[in-house]
Amino acid sequence: MTKRDLLTMIGKTAGASAMYLAMSSMGEAHETTFTKPVKLEGDVKGASVLVLGAGVAGLVSALELRRAGYNVQVLEYNNRIGGRSWTLKGGDTFTELGGATQHVQFAPGNYINPGPWRIPYHHHGLMHYCTTLGVQLEPFMQVNTNAYLHNTKAFDGKPQRFREISADYQGHISELLAKAVNKNALGDAVTKDDAEKLIESLRSFGALDKDLSYSKGHNSAERRGWAKNPGGGLTAEPIASEPMSLSTVLQSGLWSGIAAGMGIDHQSAIFQPVGGMENVAKGFEKHVGDIVRLNSKVVSIQQDAKGVVVTYEDTKTGARMQAKADYCICTIPLSVLSQIEMNVSDSMSAAIQAVPYEAGFKVGLEFKRRFWEQDEQIYGGISYTDLPITQISYPSTRYGMQGPSTLLGGYTFGAFAYEFTSLPPEERVARAVEWGSKIHPQYKDEFLNGVAVGWHRVPWTMGCFGSWTDDLRKEHYKNLCQMDGRILLAGEHASYIPAWQEGGITSALDAIGRLHQRVVAG
Amino acid sequence: MTKRDLLTMIGKTAGASAMYLAMSSMGEAHETTFTKPVKLEGDVKGASVLVLGAGVAGLVSALELRRAGYNVQVLEYNNRIGGRSWTLKGGDTFTELGGATQHVQFAPGNYINPGPWRIPYHHHGLMHYCTTLGVQLEPFMQVNTNAYLHNTKAFDGKPQRFREISADYQGHISELLAKAVNKNALGDAVTKDDAEKLIESLRSFGALDKDLSYSKGHNSAERRGWAKNPGGGLTAEPIASEPMSLSTVLQSGLWSGIAAGMGIDHQSAIFQPVGGMENVAKGFEKHVGDIVRLNSKVVSIQQDAKGVVVTYEDTKTGARMQAKADYCICTIPLSVLSQIEMNVSDSMSAAIQAVPYEAGFKVGLEFKRRFWEQDEQIYGGISYTDLPITQISYPSTRYGMQGPSTLLGGYTFGAFAYEFTSLPPEERVARAVEWGSKIHPQYKDEFLNGVAVGWHRVPWTMGCFGSWTDDLRKEHYKNLCQMDGRILLAGEHASYIPAWQEGGITSALDAIGRLHQRVVAG
Repeated sequence: MTKRDLLTMIGKTAGASAMYLAMSSMGEAHETTFTKPVKLEGDVKGASVLVLGAGVAGLVSALELRRAGYNVQVLEYNNRIGGRSWTLKGGDTFTELGGATQHVQFAPGNYINPGPWRIPYHHHGLMHYCTTLGVQLEPFMQVNTNAYLHNTKAFDGKPQRFREISADYQGHISELLAKAVNKNALGDAVTKDDAEKLIESLRSFGALDKDLSYSKGHNSAERRGWAKNPGGGLTAEPIASEPMSLSTVLQSGLWSGIAAGMGIDHQSAIFQPVGGMENVAKGFEKHVGDIVRLNSKVVSIQQDAKGVVVTYEDTKTGARMQAKADYCICTIPLSVLSQIEMNVSDSMSAAIQAVPYEAGFKVGLEFKRRFWEQDEQIYGGISYTDLPITQISYPSTRYGMQGPSTLLGGYTFGAFAYEFTSLPPEERVARAVEWGSKIHPQYKDEFLNGVAVGWHRVPWTMGCFGSWTDDLRKEHYKNLCQMDGRILLAGEHASYIPAWQEGGITSALDAIGRLHQRVVAG
Repeated sequence: MTKRDLLTMIGKTAGASAMYLAMSSMGEAHETTFTKPVKLEGDVKGASVLVLGAGVAGLVSALELRRAGYNVQVLEYNNRIGGRSWTLKGGDTFTELGGATQHVQFAPGNYINPGPWRIPYHHHGLMHYCTTLGVQLEPFMQVNTNAYLHNTKAFDGKPQRFREISADYQGHISELLAKAVNKNALGDAVTKDDAEKLIESLRSFGALDKDLSYSKGHNSAERRGWAKNPGGGLTAEPIASEPMSLSTVLQSGLWSGIAAGMGIDHQSAIFQPVGGMENVAKGFEKHVGDIVRLNSKVVSIQQDAKGVVVTYEDTKTGARMQAKADYCICTIPLSVLSQIEMNVSDSMSAAIQAVPYEAGFKVGLEFKRRFWEQDEQIYGGISYTDLPITQISYPSTRYGMQGPSTLLGGYTFGAFAYEFTSLPPEERVARAVEWGSKIHPQYKDEFLNGVAVGWHRVPWTMGCFGSWTDDLRKEHYKNLCQMDGRILLAGEHASYIPAWQEGGITSALDAIGRLHQRVVAG
């Protein structure tokens, strides 16, 4: 069974939020080895480096190599830098494989990030470049306890507030354990000395009553919310809400959503660049924009004892040209690189061919107003659903704003993403609106327009990210990352942090470090 | 035993974060009855209202009564509006009871909020006024899993990362419960049908392994963090960290800190106004600033069949003056009001005298740089300690900024707050620096200046907030809130949401609603 099959199966049986969690635990989600700013010291002897691709891996390589004294040029396929660190705003157009072109109609200030959208605090490399390059960050609201958990087969398809499922689950399991400890039902698993503190701690953790029950009253209402909120004056007294039973929570399957913010990659603090992820690339652009050649499609990479020759096509004129350098840092996604003529060793070539690319799908929807804030008091955060859209993410910025606003109306991997990508763009948007209206009935009246990116139809990646398995890593990972003559690969595909910009950054720093060692020693 | 004694005792035995939690569960923390914008419809017959105090309760009263057509005047003791919704910035001065004056030296853009500093999403009244009055909000980072939990008597006084304590506690209790269920040790507390799902859910909730253990490896590292982070290229492979035992977590007492963000008043989404809490008042000022008379100290409130006469002193000139109106909304804190001559019923008078005021203390410290971000990767959030400062809160704004920055270097109630308040301001700051350096050794080298507010020495409140007990409420609450002739009280003290601005707002809306009914019917 492939990982993708497994994910699809998990998605179908346990709901999409479980699938999302399973993806995290399969290694799509990791910290980083970056500990301090790189310093490439020593004589670079006038060496030149050609960097292929101006995503974050290419941009970091260009910035640091140039600082160290190398002659650097960068070739980029698109008419902009950033690669998958990309933002779609009103006025942008995007033409996908197959020829369909979408004209983004969002109002000024509205956007979606079709690729990466979050920056965990522990992605130290990316945080370093953001703070030193002046990329302004604002918190990404990962967990919002007032957002929804939704399963079409539970609660008659009515979405539930995250805080209610979360508080009730935590309360009931704390009660079960506290009472078991109290009755000495756990044998010698807990010492007598620890038992008392364990019960005391569960009382706090689970919001239990004096008798160790999780039940209707002040304590549970202070976690899950009140039926009637407290207030002021003569109408002030609150009324507690009624907790669900443990069985209701367990049978609903919605418990699978409450761990969504607990993984190290989604814990607070987690950020987004103000104005969109493209601003990461713009931070680099000030320092290396002048050495990036846009609209340059690489068609061949050839090396010999003297250097590297890259043949590329100007996508505006169709003219073929060559660029030469002593060394090459190639950050082109393996899905594309595997189709480019390139004289590297058989082992690197096999590695390049071996890694499949994960399917990914995002849809951005614009509505007349922020009904999620105004009607439902959901300010940022994510609702999870077992519908194919998997999640709805509300904007983590400009809270309380009036007028049209975008949200992320679907973000999913695996089978659903393939299905979405196979549809024409307008049909993808229509389905996201249809499904989303099961959670927010306001969708139908308030919808304005949308844009949908299926990553297998993005011409310059043909997939979302390198989908490594443990077996593939054993056989190919080192061969992919080894310096091959004068060529080194970098990018999220050459890291243990697939799909994240930090993978691209740390792989670039590792690659240029080894390149530099060679040059200085040579 | 009074509530204060109880809190002090909890503080001494279980650590300050337990005290903080206990305060929440005693009712200092609640939702609100506000559901939609108030509409006062009907003929107000040219009636006039005198509002005493221009904190949020007075400002809401003035705004809504004026909109409804009343003639409104407001008297305010301070030389600014906002009351406890207050921000201290560089250039501000503050003179406390006893005469000590502090000159705030913070760099431009740095500030602390000595009073309220957070706006939970479910404080619907305050959220309504912020969004409609153009008060820009940004997320307050309540929980940061990379911040510290600190107990001087555990781990040799070395602070621990929140995520390590939290993940290990949750993992171990999940393991205990899952194994107990697996062994049928819980009797009939869980049905067979639920048992399987419960185990499955605990595997997810606790990051358990296949054998239901919480142990060193991928799953636990994905929650508590890695010993060596994953990265890119040839140095990419991560190394898992070693979880603590359950006994270590329990005996450390640090488990008491992990529930700090779980209460309904601290759950995400939670906000702060950009630039400081004073901007809430500034939002109102645009609409009612022209009818507020500053520097006006109320000395007497007298009513008769015809109206209300308030005598006040101009604090700049010492001149005594009178203001008259048909009705009075009085928002003066009970600690001050109880010393003002006022002809109300015995029952309201007794209520005004009955409510003690809680002690509160905050200190703002400015440092040369954000060492907590730069050295320790703590971007916003709160560290908790059993030291008298109780907590250190890192700024939830301008992440990544260079240069001098403030943080909240201490915030506490009860006995510690009294002790702090009794010291001269410079000594309070010195102690906060001394204690904080146990958590951040950088304090000593990086400290620039500080300001410290002990609320019992604030001349216009002489305490932090009305400290109701259940018994006091039974005897006095309704008498405090009843319309007494032509006088109605409002403020957080006249609410079930003490200490929060939402209490002031909902009490004001309730009071003016009843006033309006009287006028329209009369």
